[in-house]
This record gives sequence, C-alpha cells and structure tokens, in this order.
Amino acid sequence: MKKIAILGSTGSIGQSTLSICESYPDRFRPIALAAGSNLEVAFEQCRRWHPQLVSISTERLADQLRTLLKSAAISTEVVHGTAGTVRVATLPEANFVVSAIVGVAGLEATYAAVLAGKTVGLANKECIVAAGDLILAAARERGVALLPIDSEHNAIHQCLRGGAPNEVRQIWLTASGGPFRNTPLSEFEHITPAQALKHPTWVMGQRITVDSATMLNKGLEIIEACRLFNLPPSQVKVTVHPQSTIHSLVEYVDGSILAQISVTDMRLPILYALAWPERIPSDLTFDMTALKQLDFQTPDLERFPCLRLAYEAAAASQAHCIALNGADEVAVAAFLSGRLSFLGIPRTIESVLSVTASASPASIPEVLQLDQSARALAEQVIEQHHPYLITH
Amino acid sequence: MKKIAILGSTGSIGQSTLSICESYPDRFRPIALAAGSNLEVAFEQCRRWHPQLVSISTERLADQLRTLLKSAAISTEVVHGTAGTVRVATLPEANFVVSAIVGVAGLEATYAAVLAGKTVGLANKECIVAAGDLILAAARERGVALLPIDSEHNAIHQCLRGGAPNEVRQIWLTASGGPFRNTPLSEFEHITPAQALKHPTWVMGQRITVDSATMLNKGLEIIEACRLFNLPPSQVKVTVHPQSTIHSLVEYVDGSILAQISVTDMRLPILYALAWPERIPSDLTFDMTALKQLDFQTPDLERFPCLRLAYEAAAASQAHCIALNGADEVAVAAFLSGRLSFLGIPRTIESVLSVTASASPASIPEVLQLDQSARALAEQVIEQHHPYLITH
Repeated sequence: MKKIAILGSTGSIGQSTLSICESYPDRFRPIALAAGSNLEVAFEQCRRWHPQLVSISTERLADQLRTLLKSAAISTEVVHGTAGTVRVATLPEANFVVSAIVGVAGLEATYAAVLAGKTVGLANKECIVAAGDLILAAARERGVALLPIDSEHNAIHQCLRGGAPNEVRQIWLTASGGPFRNTPLSEFEHITPAQALKHPTWVMGQRITVDSATMLNKGLEIIEACRLFNLPPSQVKVTVHPQSTIHSLVEYVDGSILAQISVTDMRLPILYALAWPERIPSDLTFDMTALKQLDFQTPDLERFPCLRLAYEAAAASQAHCIALNGADEVAVAAFLSGRLSFLGIPRTIESVLSVTASASPASIPEVLQLDQSARALAEQVIEQHHPYLITH
Repeated sequence: MKKIAILGSTGSIGQSTLSICESYPDRFRPIALAAGSNLEVAFEQCRRWHPQLVSISTERLADQLRTLLKSAAISTEVVHGTAGTVRVATLPEANFVVSAIVGVAGLEATYAAVLAGKTVGLANKECIVAAGDLILAAARERGVALLPIDSEHNAIHQCLRGGAPNEVRQIWLTASGGPFRNTPLSEFEHITPAQALKHPTWVMGQRITVDSATMLNKGLEIIEACRLFNLPPSQVKVTVHPQSTIHSLVEYVDGSILAQISVTDMRLPILYALAWPERIPSDLTFDMTALKQLDFQTPDLERFPCLRLAYEAAAASQAHCIALNGADEVAVAAFLSGRLSFLGIPRTIESVLSVTASASPASIPEVLQLDQSARALAEQVIEQHHPYLITH
C-alpha cells in the first residue's frame, strides 16, 4: 500500500489522482491533502478519504473546515498556508507526494518533500523550471525518485527505459502547435484572448492555454526536460505533432527512437508515476484500430519566439529560467486583460531576459525573490512600453 | 571484443553484419563464416577478415576455396555442408552467432549454437516459426539470449525494455501492407508475379517479396513473435503502416504504448543485437525533421487470408506452423513459375493445413521431416487442384 500526500488536491491533477486512488483502493491511499481555497471540495475529499492531515490556503478557511469536519465527526487534522502545505509534503507516514500546485506556490513544499526523502510525482513544471538545479541536486543526494506527471516528460521517462542515460543522443518533445500553427504570421499581432483560449487538444487552465498558443509552454517543458533528464538544451528538440498521440520520443546514439503513445488523459501518467517501478492494469486503453494518421512538422521559431527564448534561458542560467516563467505569467495576465497584444508576450519576456543577470539561487527564498523581481520588471516593461507592445 | 560467427555470411544480412564489423573494428571481429555457394564472395570475405573457420555449401566448392586461400597464404580452415555450418555455429572461440541463413537450412546450426550457449542474433525467421518451441526451450534452459534481427521483432525487443514481461497487454507488429493493400479484391485473382514482386518499402528476395504481398510474411512474424516473446496469438496484433517508419509497438497493461522508429536499414537491428545490452553510436540517423505523416489501417483478413491462416497455425501446433511455412514456399515458387494464381497461394496453404495433424516435434530431424511432408503435400495439392487454383 502506497500512502499518498497530494499537494493541490482540489485542482484538476489532484482530483485525477484521487480518482486513481478510488480505482485501486488496495494499492494507493491518500493520507494527506493540501487543498487550495475551495472549502467545499476540500471538505468532500476529507469526508471521502478521512486523511490524517489536510491543509487549506488561509486560517479563516481552516477554521471553517474544522467546524465542518467536527460536525461530521471526522478527525482529520487541519492546518493552513505554506507551512501547512509543507507539513502535508513531509508527513512521515506518506511515502509518495504528488506535487500538483500550479505555479511557484508549490515550490517550497515540493522541495521539502524531496529533502524528506519522499518519492515525488511532479505535475508542477514551474518547480523544475524555477528551482530545477536545487531540487535535482537534493534528489540525487538523497536517492529520491522524481517521476514526471505531465504527459511529455512522463513519455520521456518511459522511453528512457530503453537504454542507459549515456546512450541518449537527444530527446524530442511533441507539441500540438496550438491553435496558431498554421495562422499567417501577419495576423499574429491581432490575435485576441478569445482566439488564444481555444486549444485544439487539451482542456486546461487559462495561462497554460495561452502558453500553449505562444508555445512558451513547450519552452518551459524544454527547460524542465534539461533539468530532469540532465541534458543540455541542444539535446532537447521539439516536433510539432497536432494529434498529440505520440507524447514524446527518445533518440538513442545507435539511431533507434522510442516513442510513447497513449490516450490524452492525465490519469495515465498519474497512474504510471504512482505505480512505478511497476505498471498496473488500467482501462485507459488507446484504440490502435482507430489510429489513422499522425502528422509532424518542424516548429517555426519565427512564428513562436517564445520557444527560442526558452532555449536561450535554459542555456543562460537558473535566474533566466525563473525570469522567463515569471515574466510570462505577468504578460499572459496582461494579454488576457487586454493590456498587451499577443506578440507583446514574447516581447515582454525578451525585455526582461535582456536585463536578467546570470545566477544560481542556493535556496527557495532566493528563487522566490528572483521570481518577484522578474514579475515586477515585467509589469514595469508592460507599463512603460505600452504603445509598442499593444498594437490592437 | 565480441567474436562473431556468421551463418549466411554471403547473403544480404551476412554482408551487412560484416559492414558493421568494418565500422567497429575494436568491438566486433568475425572469426567464423558460413557462406552459401558464392565462392568468389566467400574468398573475398576470407581475404578481408582472415577468419579461423569458413564453411561453404559443397565439398567441391570447399576444395576450390582451399586452393584459393592457399595461393593467397591465408590459413583459414575450410569445411562444408550442414556439418560445416554447425562447426561454424559452435566454434568455441565465438561468443555471438548471427543466424542469417534463409529457410529451414539454417535450423540445425542455429539450434546447435543455442545448445552451445552462444548469444544468437536471429535474422532467420523460419528457425523460430518451424522450431520455436525447441529453440526457445533450449535457450531458456541455458540462459541464452536470442536477439531478433528482423526489424519488427527487434523493435519489439527494444520496446519491451519499458516494462516487465507480465506487464505486456499485447504487441503490435507493423506491416507495410504490401503493394496490394488498396487493390480491389476482385482483381486479386489476376495478380501477376511481376506485380507481386514490386514491394513499396524494402528491396528483398523473391519469396519474401511475394510473402509480403500476400502478408504471409507478417503471418510468419506473428508466429515468431508468439514464440520469441512467449505470447498467445491473441496478444499479437498487426497494424498496416505503409511508411514502415514505426517498426512495431508494445502495449502495456496500464495503457501506455511504446513504439520504435528508425531508418529502414537492416544494419541498425544488426548493430543493436551485436551491441546488446549496450547501445553504441552509429550514423544510422532517422531524420525527425523530415518526418511528415504516418498512416495506419487495420488489416483486412478477407483480402489477406494468409494472415488468418497464420493465426490459426500459431494457435494449432508447431506442426501447423511448419506446414504453413513449407506449403507457402512451395506455393510461392509455383506462383512465380506461372503454375499457380496469386489466390492459389493461400488456398494451397489452407488445403495443407486442413490435413495437418497437431504435433510438437522433439528434435530438428523431426522438424525437417514435417517440413518435407508439408512441401510434398503442397506440391500434390497444386498438381491435383490445378483447374481450381489457377484461373488466369
């Protein structure tokens, strides 16, 4: 029986993780949950699972949750805030931590889980983008397994079983290419938030959907892959594959390429991570007889400058990766609120990166400080360059 | 340094194996060669490699080869016939045997290599089709690794590294579908040898090209996969994939599928087998940036009755697999010489299978005897049913 702590239990990955626990009651038991701010869902999860420990965002919500639990005669301990999330991540009884809090908010707890020697299922790519050096060094030192849960890196993890690390020539991340992979470049300046929020394959949150349209999302995955699999940016390639059927590929030195194919359902990488090193039966079946056509094209770096910026950040320093991620989040918010054009997103990021100094933060507070500086700088850039950045 | 014995050194796989040895002189040295009847090539190979031992088909050719070697002051020992091939396969100094003699002719030597504890690279699918039970039992008993060299099974071998044997749900062999995958069924009766000998992807020998057109070739691969990977026929599926880019796939119980992609060059599976368990760098690079489109379709068992017959033989007994292979070779020869129609090939095989008794031969002579009976029966069927089988 694996005892699971879930950071971000009320989010989409958290709920999918609980649905996997539901399907395999003899194998996986959630014993600690870090919820967001959704009191109702947090309470329902406690009622269903009776975890030892639950954390919720604020003290006020924690009080409310305690009252609800008491009236339902559920003895779950309630904590709150970042300290609460860290307690969930380090609960001694848990041996597997799912890190699924979106953004840098999950950073401290994820790092704490690694330091505590937990096996970690990583669904939060910002953790590795912003603090990959720190987290990977700690994981290596403690012999902690980091199992990627996003579909591309999970696919790479599977394909890497086909050879030794030093037998890898390069890896290929597949990208859907987003809604604009065939849009004429001349129309990019006028792309609206409504257009950018339509993703062809996955239904996701707003930021990640826009990141998918700019391919910054794939840029973050490039950085994540470099850190997770210890590869230089030159060995992490991208191929545009609109059907998202092949989730990624590993090319070995002998010329063989292994690819992973599966349904586009996050429960599969979650199950893979939870069950690892075993594979256990599921009904998440990919219907090979329905497979008709797979298409591929080389990504156009002119159309998608965010990809180029990510390669540059990955090659530059950890501080540049933090800046790329922070500046993008600010720029996407500005785009969605009509303060910035679509092309203003890469322009803002490029401006922020151009004044970022190389650095390797030695602690999570340092990472968070660099993140804050980058965000402030991005706001400033958007404010000052308004006429240039907004053209529609 | 791996010391290699090559059964079938003058054939296409044999020559490709020597070209790999040429590229990696510090890793692979051919020390024993079993040639066919091509004296000139056999002599050239001895001149180039100075093997300890060479075998050639007949005593007369052996005498001629001895004379040539003597005049060139090369001290290679020359033997001949099946006994000679067995000596090559069991030479104590060799630790890797490439089995690449086409047809059942390679059977005895391949079995001898396994009994002698050699690691065997298998390019001869008839060995496993006709004597899979025997060879696999011997390999298991002696802990001998059998490394498949044909591209599909080699791909499966690679993809199987992604999980444990009991975690495999089923495997998918890809098939080009041959030249007639879109030909109207009404035209099948009138397919000529010239049409059947045009293969869209691979350039191969005549029998295997016709077998590819009838998909009997894929049928033999189904049987081979059942034996090599210890799977029932129901767990070995076929998908038609005209580009032959994905060489095969393994579907795991959790729903993940791993696929292998590479150039269509036999040197790659040969290198993989020779280097295993390592992978070593090669210039056999698949150009991912040139990858545009991959197509798939479900094979039509009405169009390709040979596939159905192979499934039936695999499920029936080893004797049925021997009969399928022997009857096909006779039927293909009759088709190529104009004595049999294209559809007469499956009809002949079906007739032979229908009168084959279930049996599990316990020795290679028994296998060869069953093979001879099946061939004789096929000749008889073709002779007797002439008007029905030939319609063009």
